[in-house]
Amino acid sequence: MNVLWVFAHPEPRSLSGALRDDATRALEREEHAVTHSDLYAMGWNPVVTAADYGHDPQERFRVGPVSASALERGTLSADVLAEQDKLKAADALVVQFPLWWYSVPAILKGWFDRVFLKDFAYGIEDPAHPGRTLRYGDGNLAGRRALVVTTAGGRAPALGPRGINGDVSELLFPLLHGTLFYVGMEVLPPVVVPGANRVTDDEFRATSAMLRERVLSIPTAEPLAYRTQNDGGYDDDLVLDDRHAPGRAGLGVHLQQDPTDPS
Amino acid sequence: MNVLWVFAHPEPRSLSGALRDDATRALEREEHAVTHSDLYAMGWNPVVTAADYGHDPQERFRVGPVSASALERGTLSADVLAEQDKLKAADALVVQFPLWWYSVPAILKGWFDRVFLKDFAYGIEDPAHPGRTLRYGDGNLAGRRALVVTTAGGRAPALGPRGINGDVSELLFPLLHGTLFYVGMEVLPPVVVPGANRVTDDEFRATSAMLRERVLSIPTAEPLAYRTQNDGGYDDDLVLDDRHAPGRAGLGVHLQQDPTDPS
Repeated sequence: MNVLWVFAHPEPRSLSGALRDDATRALEREEHAVTHSDLYAMGWNPVVTAADYGHDPQERFRVGPVSASALERGTLSADVLAEQDKLKAADALVVQFPLWWYSVPAILKGWFDRVFLKDFAYGIEDPAHPGRTLRYGDGNLAGRRALVVTTAGGRAPALGPRGINGDVSELLFPLLHGTLFYVGMEVLPPVVVPGANRVTDDEFRATSAMLRERVLSIPTAEPLAYRTQNDGGYDDDLVLDDRHAPGRAGLGVHLQQDPTDPS
Repeated sequence: MNVLWVFAHPEPRSLSGALRDDATRALEREEHAVTHSDLYAMGWNPVVTAADYGHDPQERFRVGPVSASALERGTLSADVLAEQDKLKAADALVVQFPLWWYSVPAILKGWFDRVFLKDFAYGIEDPAHPGRTLRYGDGNLAGRRALVVTTAGGRAPALGPRGINGDVSELLFPLLHGTLFYVGMEVLPPVVVPGANRVTDDEFRATSAMLRERVLSIPTAEPLAYRTQNDGGYDDDLVLDDRHAPGRAGLGVHLQQDPTDPS
């Protein structure tokens, strides 16, 4: 497979850098091709501005319409186009970052803000629902798989289902579900490395081995069972039907967990 | 009160800009002082780099220790220090942004990444728990209130408790709880403006009036009832005790909602 590895740590001589290098070698040994977007090394600009789109600064900047029109007119920034080309060529996307303020670093958020534009990452009209776009399990980037890898200072219990930091897979919901699943990718369970600022040599070896196994199994691993927009049990307002996860609310309802659930 | 208004929209001639201007006038009419950090207008750099800290690029950059040491040695970037000074002088923080990919724009994420440093925003040792810092309801920025204001393209039902986009207050958990509450602020329920790219004149007037009311009531409104680190019912691993929200998991357990809950 062709893997695009997006890396958002400022220091290559870090645990994150060592894990990436080791996993890349493992992929290449198995004849997979890895393309890198090392955002710090590239000096990636994460800020969406009108300049991305060749937009006249005298005119009001409406981000959505302006960006879609720039894609069509061919006036999109070269750095954005280069990342879009890498994505088109990829079968799998790995997104690796240190968890800062329980979310992605700014430089990585701005990769999605600037690259995942309407009519590139989403925007295909759903033939079955005029006026609605294909999203959440289907859409422009369908057919690709995504793996999120994050290193966190917090300890595992505090990042768990009832830990004070919040359950890490729910903290990452805007990325896993709201971004990667939104554009149609199959999203694998994230790799979370807790206590990342105090890893012993033994822990490093175990973590590296685990990550190698996770990246090599990208083509075969079971994706997160997020409910799809069209078949997941949502009504016309895109609210989950009472037959599914009845009486429950919160981000967890968007995962199909109950084997008796009819959806 | 002194309000610091952090604004992260690229276009002042937007719904967001109009709402901010109107709410600012309302605050000033009531003799409140408003200081602005208009991140796009300031050309704010959102990217954490070693250069922020006067760090020797030959040496490995460990973000946490390096930033704390720069604060102590006085080698922190002037732009970061200026924002820290604004925060010190503020009684209330308003954070306003368009919801991009179900999260904050990169320029705003990088305001927190660069400004909310250890020993400025957190890091006071808890006298009752040696080795643990005061966080989640207490800490360096305690005594301040925070209000998040966001405009979203999605419609209200899809951003609700069972909507396909995810419950917006849980989507914002990394900001509301993991950042603002973490550093000790009292966090008010967020102001969410759905369907923001198709607001009629009447809707604009109603939204403006609602926002004026929300900002004027910052000193008196009831904050979100997040559980505090020390009295909220967490065990020594900072996992919520079984007596609270029994049998439940997910981000919702960190809110005290049940009036019979003993915590």
